Amino acid sequence: MKLTENIVTFVGCKSSYEDSDIVLFGAPFDSTTSYRPGTRFGPSAIRTESIGLETYSPYSDGDLTECKIFDSGDLVLPFGSAERALDEIYDRTKNIVNDGKIPFMLGGEHTVTFGAFRAIVEKYPDVHMIHFDAHTDLRDTYYGEYLSHATVIKRCYDLVGDKKIYHFGLRSGAKDEFVFAQEHNTIEKHSCKTLDKVLPLLKDKPVYITIDLDCMDPSFFPGTGTPESGGISFMDLLDSILKMSHLKVVGMDLNELSPMYDLSQASTALACKLTRESLIALTLNRQK
Amino acid sequence: MKLTENIVTFVGCKSSYEDSDIVLFGAPFDSTTSYRPGTRFGPSAIRTESIGLETYSPYSDGDLTECKIFDSGDLVLPFGSAERALDEIYDRTKNIVNDGKIPFMLGGEHTVTFGAFRAIVEKYPDVHMIHFDAHTDLRDTYYGEYLSHATVIKRCYDLVGDKKIYHFGLRSGAKDEFVFAQEHNTIEKHSCKTLDKVLPLLKDKPVYITIDLDCMDPSFFPGTGTPESGGISFMDLLDSILKMSHLKVVGMDLNELSPMYDLSQASTALACKLTRESLIALTLNRQK
Amino acid sequence: MKLTENIVTFVGCKSSYEDSDIVLFGAPFDSTTSYRPGTRFGPSAIRTESIGLETYSPYSDGDLTECKIFDSGDLVLPFGSAERALDEIYDRTKNIVNDGKIPFMLGGEHTVTFGAFRAIVEKYPDVHMIHFDAHTDLRDTYYGEYLSHATVIKRCYDLVGDKKIYHFGLRSGAKDEFVFAQEHNTIEKHSCKTLDKVLPLLKDKPVYITIDLDCMDPSFFPGTGTPESGGISFMDLLDSILKMSHLKVVGMDLNELSPMYDLSQASTALACKLTRESLIALTLNRQK
Amino acid sequence: MKLTENIVTFVGCKSSYEDSDIVLFGAPFDSTTSYRPGTRFGPSAIRTESIGLETYSPYSDGDLTECKIFDSGDLVLPFGSAERALDEIYDRTKNIVNDGKIPFMLGGEHTVTFGAFRAIVEKYPDVHMIHFDAHTDLRDTYYGEYLSHATVIKRCYDLVGDKKIYHFGLRSGAKDEFVFAQEHNTIEKHSCKTLDKVLPLLKDKPVYITIDLDCMDPSFFPGTGTPESGGISFMDLLDSILKMSHLKVVGMDLNELSPMYDLSQASTALACKLTRESLIALTLNRQK
Amino acid sequence: MKLTENIVTFVGCKSSYEDSDIVLFGAPFDSTTSYRPGTRFGPSAIRTESIGLETYSPYSDGDLTECKIFDSGDLVLPFGSAERALDEIYDRTKNIVNDGKIPFMLGGEHTVTFGAFRAIVEKYPDVHMIHFDAHTDLRDTYYGEYLSHATVIKRCYDLVGDKKIYHFGLRSGAKDEFVFAQEHNTIEKHSCKTLDKVLPLLKDKPVYITIDLDCMDPSFFPGTGTPESGGISFMDLLDSILKMSHLKVVGMDLNELSPMYDLSQASTALACKLTRESLIALTLNRQK
Amino acid sequence: MKLTENIVTFVGCKSSYEDSDIVLFGAPFDSTTSYRPGTRFGPSAIRTESIGLETYSPYSDGDLTECKIFDSGDLVLPFGSAERALDEIYDRTKNIVNDGKIPFMLGGEHTVTFGAFRAIVEKYPDVHMIHFDAHTDLRDTYYGEYLSHATVIKRCYDLVGDKKIYHFGLRSGAKDEFVFAQEHNTIEKHSCKTLDKVLPLLKDKPVYITIDLDCMDPSFFPGTGTPESGGISFMDLLDSILKMSHLKVVGMDLNELSPMYDLSQASTALACKLTRESLIALTLNRQK
Repeated sequence: MKLTENIVTFVGCKSSYEDSDIVLFGAPFDSTTSYRPGTRFGPSAIRTESIGLETYSPYSDGDLTECKIFDSGDLVLPFGSAERALDEIYDRTKNIVNDGKIPFMLGGEHTVTFGAFRAIVEKYPDVHMIHFDAHTDLRDTYYGEYLSHATVIKRCYDLVGDKKIYHFGLRSGAKDEFVFAQEHNTIEKHSCKTLDKVLPLLKDKPVYITIDLDCMDPSFFPGTGTPESGGISFMDLLDSILKMSHLKVVGMDLNELSPMYDLSQASTALACKLTRESLIALTLNRQK
Repeated sequence: MKLTENIVTFVGCKSSYEDSDIVLFGAPFDSTTSYRPGTRFGPSAIRTESIGLETYSPYSDGDLTECKIFDSGDLVLPFGSAERALDEIYDRTKNIVNDGKIPFMLGGEHTVTFGAFRAIVEKYPDVHMIHFDAHTDLRDTYYGEYLSHATVIKRCYDLVGDKKIYHFGLRSGAKDEFVFAQEHNTIEKHSCKTLDKVLPLLKDKPVYITIDLDCMDPSFFPGTGTPESGGISFMDLLDSILKMSHLKVVGMDLNELSPMYDLSQASTALACKLTRESLIALTLNRQK
Repeated sequence: MKLTENIVTFVGCKSSYEDSDIVLFGAPFDSTTSYRPGTRFGPSAIRTESIGLETYSPYSDGDLTECKIFDSGDLVLPFGSAERALDEIYDRTKNIVNDGKIPFMLGGEHTVTFGAFRAIVEKYPDVHMIHFDAHTDLRDTYYGEYLSHATVIKRCYDLVGDKKIYHFGLRSGAKDEFVFAQEHNTIEKHSCKTLDKVLPLLKDKPVYITIDLDCMDPSFFPGTGTPESGGISFMDLLDSILKMSHLKVVGMDLNELSPMYDLSQASTALACKLTRESLIALTLNRQK
Repeated sequence: MKLTENIVTFVGCKSSYEDSDIVLFGAPFDSTTSYRPGTRFGPSAIRTESIGLETYSPYSDGDLTECKIFDSGDLVLPFGSAERALDEIYDRTKNIVNDGKIPFMLGGEHTVTFGAFRAIVEKYPDVHMIHFDAHTDLRDTYYGEYLSHATVIKRCYDLVGDKKIYHFGLRSGAKDEFVFAQEHNTIEKHSCKTLDKVLPLLKDKPVYITIDLDCMDPSFFPGTGTPESGGISFMDLLDSILKMSHLKVVGMDLNELSPMYDLSQASTALACKLTRESLIALTLNRQK
Repeated sequence: MKLTENIVTFVGCKSSYEDSDIVLFGAPFDSTTSYRPGTRFGPSAIRTESIGLETYSPYSDGDLTECKIFDSGDLVLPFGSAERALDEIYDRTKNIVNDGKIPFMLGGEHTVTFGAFRAIVEKYPDVHMIHFDAHTDLRDTYYGEYLSHATVIKRCYDLVGDKKIYHFGLRSGAKDEFVFAQEHNTIEKHSCKTLDKVLPLLKDKPVYITIDLDCMDPSFFPGTGTPESGGISFMDLLDSILKMSHLKVVGMDLNELSPMYDLSQASTALACKLTRESLIALTLNRQK
Repeated sequence: MKLTENIVTFVGCKSSYEDSDIVLFGAPFDSTTSYRPGTRFGPSAIRTESIGLETYSPYSDGDLTECKIFDSGDLVLPFGSAERALDEIYDRTKNIVNDGKIPFMLGGEHTVTFGAFRAIVEKYPDVHMIHFDAHTDLRDTYYGEYLSHATVIKRCYDLVGDKKIYHFGLRSGAKDEFVFAQEHNTIEKHSCKTLDKVLPLLKDKPVYITIDLDCMDPSFFPGTGTPESGGISFMDLLDSILKMSHLKVVGMDLNELSPMYDLSQASTALACKLTRESLIALTLNRQK
C-alpha cells in the first residue's frame, strides 16, 4: 500500500485543473496595511476552516461536489514589495483567464485586487467592476505610495476609466474620495439597495466582482483589520452575490478577512460560507 | 456560628426539589462533536455567569425569585461513550417527569436532547417537538455513529414518527436531510416567521422545546462550535419562546453554548438571559 | 533641530484650549463595578485606536480637522473612592463650562456621569437629561453604597427632580426601578423609537446627553462589562445622536467601553466612530 | 428519588464544618487595584478548575480526600469600599480561629490579607508573618488611601511591630519601602534562598503565611495583574510551602490570580496545585 | 501552463513515500479527553505553523531538506469511538513498519499511542517504551472506559509486560498508579535526570518513544489541556531526544498540543521545533 | 485655569530635549516581517503599559525620575517601503547623536536597527555592535529583498566589516549564516555565557547594543512573532545589560515585542522593565 500526499483544498473542490470551470487561489499579502496587519493569514484560514462546512447550499440548491473547481493553493508572495507581489498575482490570473476559466481569489489586503484586475482588463477590455467595501480606496497615493490598500480602486479606475465601477457600502474615506466616486463612478453609500437598478445595466457585459468583506457591518463580520460600523448585513451581501452571479462574471475576489481578530472564528466561518455560495452560484449560472 | 456550604445555582433559583415546578440540570457532554468541541463547559458557564443577571424580567413582568425552580447542578457524564451519557440523562429526566415537574436541561452538544426526549416520550407518547436550529441534525448515521450531534433529531423522529416535529431556522445540512424534513416533518428554513401558524395546531398537546442556540445568527451568538450565518435574531427567538410558553410545555432544553469561543462572554450572557426568560415564562403560564 | 514632545489626542483634535468649542477628557474609573471591571481602560483605548479612523464624516459631511476641539487627556482618579473621583470630575467639568465650552467626557463606568452632571446643573439649573442605557441605574443604594454605577441616574434625578430625565433602551433592572422611571421620568423600554416625539419638547432647553454604550445590542457592541441582548442598533444610536445634536447640548458623555472584552477591537472602533460623529455634529450645530 | 443540591467545593474538600481542621474561603475583592483589575474572579476560578486536578500529591504522598477541609465558598463583598470588605473578611476569619480551625483564604487582591490578619493577631498576639511577593506593599498611604493593595503589609506591620515580618521575593517598590523593610522587618530581595535560615527562628511561634502569587516569575505565573519579571520559580515556591508547613501555621492565604489574564488557564491550574499542596501539607503536619 | 495542487507538508518534508526513511502522520483525536478537549487540532497546527521554522538545526547540524521524510497528512478519525479510531491508527502504523520505515505520529490526545504501539509490538515483540509525561496514564479503567487518555500506558503495558516501560517526568496521578509504575516499570518522578543511566540498558533493543508534551513545565509549554507545573525544561527534553535518537528507534510520537490554549502560538512553535529536531536526529542516526 | 495637553511618555521620562542625556523614540515598522506581523504596535504598548511600573530600580538603586531622558514619541513611518522607513530612522538618530545624546530606539521589527546604526557609524566609525537575538539575521537577501528583518545584521556588517559584531543567543538560521558569523564576527550560540570575556575587549570602544527580545526563551517572552525555544533567561539578559552599561554605549535598541501575541501582557511588562533598567544603567554609568 502506498500512502497518499496531503492535498488540502477548500471543501469539496476536487476537480483537476484541466476539467475546472473556476480556479481558486489565495493571495496572502498585507504589507501595505497601515493599521492592523494580518489578512495574510486569511486564505489559509478559509481553506482550513472550510472542513466545518457542508458542501450543499440550501440557498441555491447546488452542491460544491458537483461543481468543477480547482484549488491551487496560495501564492508565495514577497513581503515588503507590493509591486512584485502584484506581478505574481497578475501572472497567476493571466494563466487562468487565458485557459478560459474564472479566477476566484481569496485575499489578503484589498491591494491584491489590482494584480488580478490588470490581467482581467487585458483579456476583457470592456470589463466593469462591482465593488463592495466600507472604504473608498480611491486615494491617488497614500503616505507617498502608489500601490496601497487605500489606492487600489483608484488604480483599477486608471485602467478602465469613467463609469465602469459601481461602489456599494462605502462609508469611510476622505471627502475628495467620495466626490471622485460620485463624479467618475457610480456610488451607493452605506448599503446596496440600488443593486437591482444596476444589474440590468451590466447585462451581457463582462463583470469583475471585488468584495472587501468589511463592507459588512462588524456585527456580522468583526474579524477584519479596520471594522467600520453601519454596514451591510450578511443576508444582503449573500443576496447580492446570488443576484450578481447571473451576470457574465469573468473574475471575483473576497478579501480582508484577518483571522487573528476572529477569536470566535465566526468571521472565518462566514467567509467560508460566502466562498461556497459564490462558487456554486457562479457554476450554476455558467452552466446555463 | 456555623459556616454554610457553597451551594451554587442559577441566579434566583432557590426552591427545594419538593416545592419546585421546574427542575434545572446541566448535561456537559460533547464527545461526538466532529468540529470544535467545548460545549461541555456550557452549563457551568451559564450557572456561574448568571450572577451578572437581574432576576426580574421587563419582558414578562415576572421575577425568578417568585418562581419555584430547583437547580440540581450538572450530571457527571462519561466522555467517549454517547450511549452511557444518554442513559444518565434519560434517568435524570425520567425522575423529574415522574414527579410531575418540568425538566429544563442545559447542554452540552445537541445529542443530549435524545436522552431527555426518550424519557419524555415514555411519559407523554403524544408529545410534539419544536426544534430551533441552524443544522438539520437528521442524518441517519454520521461517520458510522448512530448517536451523534448530526443524527440526534433523526433519533427523536424514530421515537415519535411523522408530522410530530417542527423545525425552525434550518440552513445547513445535506440535501437529503432537507428533503426528509419536508416529507416527514414541518420545516421553515432560515427563520421562524411561520411559528404563529404552528402554535394553534399544538394547542393542548404536550410539547417539548429543543433550542440549539446556533439557530441565532452569529452576530447575536458567536459563542458556539459551528456558527452559521444567516440566522434568527435574538429578539425573534425571545419572542418565540414567550409565545411557545403558552403551550403545554412538558420539557425544554437550550444547548450548544461553547464558552471558549465566547471571549467577550456576550454569548454566555445571552444564554443566561434566555434561560431566565424561559423559566419565568414557563412558570407564569403553568400557574395560569 | 529640537525634537517635539509626544502629544496624544483623539484623531484630528488639534485645537488649543483657548480656541476650543468642545473639551474632550477621559474619566478612567471603574471601582464600583460589581460584575466585570475594565472600563478604566476605555478612554485610553478610544484615543489610541482613533488613529485608525478617518477625520471626515460621510454622515454629516463635516471633518474633525475643521472643528475646534481640545483633548486634555485623562484625569488621574483615585481607585477605591467614588466620592473623591467624582469630585475630580466635577472640578474638571466646572472649569470647562465656566469657560463657555462644552465638556465631552469618555468613561469609565457610568458612575462618572454624576460628577459631570453636578457641575452642569450648577451652571444650567434647568438642564434636562437624555439617557441611553440598557440598565435603569435608578437604585437608591446598591450593596449599601450611595454612589455606584447602579445608582448614578437616581443621584442625577435627586439634583433635578421630576420629569427632567428621558430614558431610552432600558431593559434590565429591578421592578421598582422601572416603576420609578415611569412615575418620575419618561421611559421607553428596549428601543428609542419615541425620540422624535421627545425632541420638540426639549427645544431651547439646555440638554445633557449621557450614553451608556451598552444601550446597543451586544451584536453591535460586545465590548462592555454587562452586555444585555435585545438592544438598539448602531445606526439607530447614530441617527439619534445626529438628531439630538440640534438641541442646545451643554454636555455629553459616552461610557462603559471595556477594551479587555473587545478582542476584535470592533467595539473600540465603534466607540471611536460615535465620538467622531458626536464631536462633528455638536460643532456643526453650535456654529449655526 | 430526591435530587441533591449543587454543592461546589475545591476538589476533594468534603468535610463538614464541625469535623474540619482547615476552613477554605474566597475573598473576591479588587476595588483598590490601581492597574489591571480582575482578581475578584480568582477564588471562583480556582474552585471551578480544581476538577482538573488529582487529589493525590506525589510530593507529600498525601491525599486531599483524607484531609478534613471545609470549603465555605466565597464571601459576598461590597465593591467600592475596602473598609467594609475587610470587616467581612475579619468576621469570617474570627469565627474560624475561634473554633480552633485554620483559615485558608483565596484572594482577591492582596489587600484582603489585612482583614484576616487582624483577626489572627487578636487570637495570636505573638504571630509572625511570612510574606512572599514581588511588590513591597509597604507604602503608608497610596493615592491618599490608607487601605490599599500597596499599603497592606504596612497595615499588618502596624499591628505587630518590628521584626515580625519576613519578606521573600520582593523586587518592585519605591526606594523608601525597601529601606523600611530592611530596618523594621527581614527582607530577601528577588528570591527565597534564605528561608532555611529563617525557619529555625520561627520554631514554636504562631505563623501566618501570605503568598502573593506574583512572587513567582511570570514565566511560571503570567495570570496576574502586575507581572514582575525576575522572580521565584514554581518549584522553589512549592518547596518553601512544604518546608513552612512544619511551622505552627495559624492561617494562610494565596492571592492575586487574575483569570482574565490567564487565557491558557495554566496559571489557574498552578494556583489549584499550590492550594492542594498547601492544604495537604498543613494537614499532615497538624496531625503530627 | 498547468497549475499545481496544494500539497501541504511539515516544512522541508518533500520525499516521496517510496524513498522515505520516516513517515509522518497526524492522529487528530481527543474524544476521551475528560477535562479540556482540543488536541484534535494539534497535528494540523504543527503542519501549518512549521512554515515559520528554518529547516536547518544548529543543534545537530543537519537539515530537514536532506532527510528522507514523507508527510502523509492527518488520518480521518471517527469522533466518539476510541476503538475505531485506534484501529485506523493501527492500520496506518502497520503499513509503515511493514515497509521498513519509521512511523512518526503527531497527536491528538495520548490515547492515540496505543493504536501505533499495537502495530509496533507485532513487528518488534521485544520493543521497549520510553515515556515522557506529566501524568501516569496507568489507570486500568477510567469512568468505566478501557480505552482512554488515562489508561493508555496501562494498555501498552498489557502488551509488553513488566520492566519494558521507562517513565520520566511523572508528577500527577492516583497513588495506585505511582505504586504500579514503581513495581512493574521504571519511573523517575518530576524530571529525567536518570535517562543517562537508562540509555545503555536499551542499547540494541528496539525502542518506541512516546512524548506527552505536557511533560514539560507549563512555563515552556502552556498550550495543552492539563498543564501540570513542576516539569521538565525544553532544553532537557531536547537533549533527551537527541540522546535517545542514538538508540534503535522503531517509532515515535509527540502528542497533546492543544492550539486553542496557545494564543501566543509559542507552544505550537515549540512543538514544530521538537518535531524538526526529532526527525533530523532520527535520520542522522539511522544513516550511521 | 487652563487645561494642559495630553503628553504621553515612558514612565518617569520628564526631561526636556535640551537637558536630556538619552533620547527615547519608537520605530513602529513591520512591513518586511515574513511570518507574523504586529511589532508595529510594540513601542506604543511599551509606553502605555509603563504606567504599571515603578520608577525605582532595586537592581541598580537608581530612579528614572532622577535620569535625564526625553521621550519624543514614535516616528510616523510609511508602510510598504523599508527604504523610506529606514531613512526616517536614520534622520532621527543623526539628529540625536549630533546633539551629543544617546539614542534609545524601541522597535518594530529588527530591520529598524539598520536605520539607526547607519547614523551611528557615521558619527563613530569605530563602533562595535553587541547583538542579542535568536535569529542570525545574516542573509544577504531574503525573498529578493535587500532590506529585511532577515538581512539586517548583514547590512550592519557591510558598514563596519570583520570582527566588529558580537552575537549572543543565536539558535535559528540557515547553515551559511552560522558559518558566516563564525568566520567574520564573534558568535555564541544559544546563550550569553561568554559575555564576560568579550566585555574587556570592548573597553573604551564605542558600542551599539541591539537586542532582539526573542533572544529570550519564549517561557520568559512569548509575545513576539517568531518565538524560538531554547533561549536566554530574563535574569541573564538583565545581568548582561547591567554589565554592558559600563561600556561606552553610543546607542541602543530593544525590538520585536508583538503585543497582539501577548494576551497576558506579561511580555509587554517585561519589555517595560528592561527599558527602565537600561535607561537607568546607561544614565548611572554615563554620569560616572
